[in-house]
Amino acid sequence: MIPIVSIMGKSDSGKTTLIEKIIPELARRGYRVATIKHDVHGFEIDKKGKDSWRHRKAGADTVIISSSKQIALIKNVERDLTLVELRDRFIHDDVDIIISEGFKRDAQPKIEVFRKEAHHELLCSKKDNLVAIVANQKFEVPVPCLDLDDGKGVVDVIEEKFLRQKDKEDISLVVDGRPVTITPFLKTFMMRTIRAMVSTLKGCQNSNRIRITIG
Amino acid sequence: MIPIVSIMGKSDSGKTTLIEKIIPELARRGYRVATIKHDVHGFEIDKKGKDSWRHRKAGADTVIISSSKQIALIKNVERDLTLVELRDRFIHDDVDIIISEGFKRDAQPKIEVFRKEAHHELLCSKKDNLVAIVANQKFEVPVPCLDLDDGKGVVDVIEEKFLRQKDKEDISLVVDGRPVTITPFLKTFMMRTIRAMVSTLKGCQNSNRIRITIG
Repeated sequence: MIPIVSIMGKSDSGKTTLIEKIIPELARRGYRVATIKHDVHGFEIDKKGKDSWRHRKAGADTVIISSSKQIALIKNVERDLTLVELRDRFIHDDVDIIISEGFKRDAQPKIEVFRKEAHHELLCSKKDNLVAIVANQKFEVPVPCLDLDDGKGVVDVIEEKFLRQKDKEDISLVVDGRPVTITPFLKTFMMRTIRAMVSTLKGCQNSNRIRITIG
Repeated sequence: MIPIVSIMGKSDSGKTTLIEKIIPELARRGYRVATIKHDVHGFEIDKKGKDSWRHRKAGADTVIISSSKQIALIKNVERDLTLVELRDRFIHDDVDIIISEGFKRDAQPKIEVFRKEAHHELLCSKKDNLVAIVANQKFEVPVPCLDLDDGKGVVDVIEEKFLRQKDKEDISLVVDGRPVTITPFLKTFMMRTIRAMVSTLKGCQNSNRIRITIG
């Protein structure tokens, strides 16, 4: 599964600025990056009068615009999706890591950005899955505390923690749109059975990632 | 699999106008609709200066903006994706039909829109998978020929042809990002084996659609 790291912090702490340092450094090291931004206010992205806008106004639930260089998708949802839901539904095998912005309440690993001019205390609590703090002051914390300008240092932490490990073998199962939890034993059983079936197909002897949709 | 119908025709024939009639009529009959618009010119959708725009400018391959009401995704591609690729990667179990606009060269079923003021002859050829013609003149063709204003009639054709049939059992397999063709025998074998495995899980006895991702 593609690893996810959330850059979180109070507003005006410099989350986007840090992400602007992280992405080119990850790219320089050969990684492809997806980002997910949590928008709490609601946003308007489609342009009034465009065909896609007309489709949506007529009542389409999902609208995709496809060209030879990029794809855009706009879709209605009924609640905030989790980072794992967003990854499993919309992000494919062609990126190595997902950097998310916001998502304070999500269970994924977090890096908190702190700027003393903007706030007085850290936002994360002990129960958060905190990987590092990026700040312009020092904190007594059991995780690396890096300088706001140190994009390279942040990428060192991300690479060490999420990208150097061998990609862990895993399986995800969605039945009628609902993720289903399965035991480790059954995971192994299903993965090996399906891998064995697929390995009999021409050109699929050494497959890495398999995606099957039925129905 | 979710059926796809392409509304095609020369430019200025009234494709978007027809789609604006079709979508509300499909919705009135209880169907949820996704649309896919083929853009040949390239488009710019993200707003300069927004966080998502900054992520992309910094080099992110895929950018998602997530809120409690809608999701937007912008992603780089290296070529035009086919309708089936777009469906399999980005459209999920929560819509009943996909109406696409453009995609003249795609193999999916087509409805041609023709307005005699705009052009002289039909765009589709005999080898096209043509389902109907929607025009302001009559044609001697072996498919229904409907009036430009007859959105309801077009939806009758779509419903009869694509939505009344019992959802055909099918399986799609993607290995390392590449769709793999499998024989009908193997399709049945894999579908039944996987359905049998999944049916042993709590709450999954009568599953309809299954999606599995490994690796």
